[in-house]
Amino acid sequence: MVALTTSLDTLCVNSIRMLAVDAINKSKSGHPGLPMGCAPMGYALWDKHLRHNPKNPKWFNRDRFVLSAGHGCMLLYALLHLTGYDSVTIEDIKEFRQWGAKTPGHPETFETPGVEVTAGPLGAGISNAVGLAIAEAHLGAKFNKPDSTVVDHYTYVIMGDGCNQEGISSEACSLAGHLKLGKLIALYDDNHITIDGRTDVSFTEDVLKRYEAYGWHVQEISEGNTDVEGISQAIEKAKSVTDKPSIIKVTTTIGYGSPNKSDTAGIHGAPLGEEEAELTRKQLGWSYKPFEVPQDAYDQYRQAIQKGAQLEEEWNQSLATYKEKYPNEASQFERMLRGELPEGWDKDLPTYTSDDQGVATRKHSQICLGALGPNIPELIGGSADLTHSNYTDIKGETGSFQYESPEKRYLHFGVREHAMAAILNGIAYHDSGLIPYGGTFLVFADYMRGSMRLSALSELGVIYVLTHDSIGVGEDGPTHQPIETIPSLRAMPNMMVFRPGDGNETSGAYKVAIKNRKRPSSLCLSRQGMANQQNSSVDKVALGGYVLEECDGTPELILIGTGTELDLCVQAAKKLTKEGRKVRVVSMPCVELFEEQSDSYKEEVLPSNIRKRLVVEAAESFGWHKYIGLDGDSVTMNSFGASAPGGLCMEKFGFTVENVLEKSRSLLNK
Amino acid sequence: MVALTTSLDTLCVNSIRMLAVDAINKSKSGHPGLPMGCAPMGYALWDKHLRHNPKNPKWFNRDRFVLSAGHGCMLLYALLHLTGYDSVTIEDIKEFRQWGAKTPGHPETFETPGVEVTAGPLGAGISNAVGLAIAEAHLGAKFNKPDSTVVDHYTYVIMGDGCNQEGISSEACSLAGHLKLGKLIALYDDNHITIDGRTDVSFTEDVLKRYEAYGWHVQEISEGNTDVEGISQAIEKAKSVTDKPSIIKVTTTIGYGSPNKSDTAGIHGAPLGEEEAELTRKQLGWSYKPFEVPQDAYDQYRQAIQKGAQLEEEWNQSLATYKEKYPNEASQFERMLRGELPEGWDKDLPTYTSDDQGVATRKHSQICLGALGPNIPELIGGSADLTHSNYTDIKGETGSFQYESPEKRYLHFGVREHAMAAILNGIAYHDSGLIPYGGTFLVFADYMRGSMRLSALSELGVIYVLTHDSIGVGEDGPTHQPIETIPSLRAMPNMMVFRPGDGNETSGAYKVAIKNRKRPSSLCLSRQGMANQQNSSVDKVALGGYVLEECDGTPELILIGTGTELDLCVQAAKKLTKEGRKVRVVSMPCVELFEEQSDSYKEEVLPSNIRKRLVVEAAESFGWHKYIGLDGDSVTMNSFGASAPGGLCMEKFGFTVENVLEKSRSLLNK
Repeated sequence: MVALTTSLDTLCVNSIRMLAVDAINKSKSGHPGLPMGCAPMGYALWDKHLRHNPKNPKWFNRDRFVLSAGHGCMLLYALLHLTGYDSVTIEDIKEFRQWGAKTPGHPETFETPGVEVTAGPLGAGISNAVGLAIAEAHLGAKFNKPDSTVVDHYTYVIMGDGCNQEGISSEACSLAGHLKLGKLIALYDDNHITIDGRTDVSFTEDVLKRYEAYGWHVQEISEGNTDVEGISQAIEKAKSVTDKPSIIKVTTTIGYGSPNKSDTAGIHGAPLGEEEAELTRKQLGWSYKPFEVPQDAYDQYRQAIQKGAQLEEEWNQSLATYKEKYPNEASQFERMLRGELPEGWDKDLPTYTSDDQGVATRKHSQICLGALGPNIPELIGGSADLTHSNYTDIKGETGSFQYESPEKRYLHFGVREHAMAAILNGIAYHDSGLIPYGGTFLVFADYMRGSMRLSALSELGVIYVLTHDSIGVGEDGPTHQPIETIPSLRAMPNMMVFRPGDGNETSGAYKVAIKNRKRPSSLCLSRQGMANQQNSSVDKVALGGYVLEECDGTPELILIGTGTELDLCVQAAKKLTKEGRKVRVVSMPCVELFEEQSDSYKEEVLPSNIRKRLVVEAAESFGWHKYIGLDGDSVTMNSFGASAPGGLCMEKFGFTVENVLEKSRSLLNK
Repeated sequence: MVALTTSLDTLCVNSIRMLAVDAINKSKSGHPGLPMGCAPMGYALWDKHLRHNPKNPKWFNRDRFVLSAGHGCMLLYALLHLTGYDSVTIEDIKEFRQWGAKTPGHPETFETPGVEVTAGPLGAGISNAVGLAIAEAHLGAKFNKPDSTVVDHYTYVIMGDGCNQEGISSEACSLAGHLKLGKLIALYDDNHITIDGRTDVSFTEDVLKRYEAYGWHVQEISEGNTDVEGISQAIEKAKSVTDKPSIIKVTTTIGYGSPNKSDTAGIHGAPLGEEEAELTRKQLGWSYKPFEVPQDAYDQYRQAIQKGAQLEEEWNQSLATYKEKYPNEASQFERMLRGELPEGWDKDLPTYTSDDQGVATRKHSQICLGALGPNIPELIGGSADLTHSNYTDIKGETGSFQYESPEKRYLHFGVREHAMAAILNGIAYHDSGLIPYGGTFLVFADYMRGSMRLSALSELGVIYVLTHDSIGVGEDGPTHQPIETIPSLRAMPNMMVFRPGDGNETSGAYKVAIKNRKRPSSLCLSRQGMANQQNSSVDKVALGGYVLEECDGTPELILIGTGTELDLCVQAAKKLTKEGRKVRVVSMPCVELFEEQSDSYKEEVLPSNIRKRLVVEAAESFGWHKYIGLDGDSVTMNSFGASAPGGLCMEKFGFTVENVLEKSRSLLNK
């Protein structure tokens, strides 16, 4: 075993290890193995490379650090504490994993300033990091000038074996290699252990060779438990490689320091216990009490405070110079950092009358992007290789974000839905005003659901453009026809699911989605065309649901429709009205927003004493009983679809005016 | 350009190309690019290697062929037709993508005999193929004898750029390399084109180097448009490598033969049109009419019929010999192939009384697996690296399925949830009686949802063991606490979602799940313990929901509970009964099965005139209004969770007897 480079280094490294041991013992829950093994790389990176300002975790030009192996969060909390972040005091560490603490069981951006991404679901963090690096490269290309730099930072990652096994990281890292993201540097904790035991039960690939295949620069450190200097030099070398992302495989011992539990799965996710903690103290020569950090270690780590203040001050000066020289760019840059939308951002969003040609809502979406793009320079996005189906391009713009053209804002994600969502999250996590959007077929939301959930949980205003939203897809058949996808997204807390019924509602959906920078949106858009409604509204989309067609007097029946089926409701209502029936049509483009309206508004739209209600939506009925109750009915899908022309599918599965009329009459005659 | 090896080969290859062109032109929808480019490899593989019997698509010992790039299904339909499968006549090809046709827009096992896996969602097919190869290796190790072989076939795949970009394939192929699945052979159609244009906009990695890193044998064919002989030789070589899976990169031109559209994204997913079809005929020297296949081509391809009959006959003879020598093994083998469960398979499933110690349902699940394992030798499964959390091991068994021990039935999937689900599907697609199960945390169902959907769509009896089913997870926090996961699974057609409320119900859930070989099950199981109920029932789980606690007379209030919250309902009902209230408790371990009961049974359990209903479940309320309607209430989750001890989370989010009582009283006093 190689000795730690200096005894101060030893002290600093072991401070992390023992804070992790003590916190996890106290909480009786947690993952000590990673922080104990990764303490040297954590220390080397944070003490010798990371440019950050502990007293201002939101300083824009900081390096981003992502702990992709989120279960090892005590590493991150220890580093935040040791380097002087106010968000993690020693008391917070003692409260590890307790109700209301700043130190939850996995790192969460919304709980702890200094945490850059919410991690835990493996592979997500490294994929977010690709998004962070894209954001940096794009903003740098956009704002930096030959004589003036305002965007310039690295994105660092610590990832584990689990991260490298997850497909999401393969997708994201392949794309990162393609894009030659030179300022992305990952440290791979190669500790040979996962929960099921030694990694060799399932994971024997040559990881570095794989990354080489992706186009990454690769390095290895064999004595990761001790070789702080070697790790630091490898990071330095990685920084010098500007046209490739870097991965440094650091071989460590999980739970290093624990005489009986290190190098076993037993230390991955369980406390050491008092006895083993004592033995670990002995082995590491640690004479301090639980939660006690030697002053020398604090003194070393907390140089970060002064360094950070200086870095920020230097940057402020650069920014001041930049403002003088480039006032227009600076004004846009600062507006973005404030999270403000440009004035008049929505002025070109189209409105329609029923005389306007009805087209598919995916087409309306394309028109919206074309209307928003020039007015919102921070809009950035693309598609998972379905640009010409999702219509996610911005009209009038050519070229895409590539190594040679990082100033472009169109992203070709390739056939990589899950990485796309994680990268969009990463761009949002960058917190620099960029508004990320990404497209795929609605049915493939399933491929990226893990990261969509993180958009919702972490309050990221990502816009998902999900086209081909029903059996209307047609010939591609049931593998491509969403049935349960819309309800499955509606079930997700904090996700707004829009299914606009025409052009106005598509404009309205974009308006809400763009405004909501703390909440993701799923826009469910049709492949096929539909009529523009006479009484549809751009602004009422913000209410979630509204009365589209009113009847004369108290309604006997309420038809509730969304998307392409809204027009079936309108047509059926017209016929029923002619027959002397009183029928209201409610358009419900966003159930979540409707739920958030006042009780009186909801009562106004859906009076509780009117129980004859029929919902029409070409998706599973699951969830709609909240509005149709035990007495209503639905024209919905209750099976998978079929391969045939879309119009025929709609007809065969009952999405016809006739069927809506039949079910309506049956309710009316009850 | 290298000429096709012989003119008969040319004829056979172009037969595929032109059937694809004609069918897609007629249907005005489809993907001609792949079949035109891959025709040579399709022909080389099917004519010169594939051991199959067109007149018995279900012959057990056939080689499996997977078209992972499912959009190119006309390649597969052409091959099925040309080699003489009754399932795809020339009329069926003329009906491509039409309502009720045997030739849907993507290949679907349940529509077309001869289709081995349902494909379309990219990356899924190659990952299924890993499961097929695992099934073959396992069954071979289990049944073959030194002097008698009954299981011996290859699994072949054609995959595209899209498949190689999807993370699911990275996961599965890394595992395949680890497992050294020598009989898995993939042909990679390297055509440089995806929907967004040339692959170099997003995909420039060195694919073969990546596969080498996984431990695969790699080869390249540079003239894939013409070099039938080269492809055939590469397949031969791949077959000779028995300790590594093989990938052969075949460089092709998408839409080969079309003078104006080949090598463009335009031919990927759109018909050529009449004019370009004519020009293609000219370029290929094709003098036949639409849908006309030259007799010489038929004659060549349809040698497969006689060869296939002979192969099956030889195998029948081997099996006869095997039966004589090894009657016990043969009896088990044949029973499995018939899809019959062994007699007494469920005899050791435990039952409980309320005196029995309450434990977590994940623990009950482990006991069930231990009770089923010895009696059901075809049960095979594992965990995505959470064995000791999911409790997916089979008591008394050690070791796992590895290259050195393929007879073992425990699968270490690694941290690869999506591949796990696809591999489980592959094992089910093998259709040899194996009953696949796999475990992860419930919240990570999101990672594998794409493949869970395919389990449901393709009628595969996969059993998903999903533990840590609520905020009861505790300290791991909101990234690990499912909220919307249960409703999102309930929304999926054909998926059975179980949330058993104690030991009996866990046994009952397994009983239903094991029996249902055409329907997947999701078992949502708790981390934390719960009481065994006095009146719970193993067998009533099959009814989906049942009256657990009855009151004296007509109920005023119905409490509906599942899982760990069932006991809250029982306790609250007891208190309310003491207060003189009439309260029924309904246990609802499987909503889908309850829905399928007769109206009279449902009315019996939930009488429609009793509207005071309260559901208690530590998940999003989404979907429950089907039972609580507009007048009921719920104790459910309406936000993400929090990191804290599980018991405290339950309390803080309102899962207490007190809160159930309060909401109950509020309903009763309405």
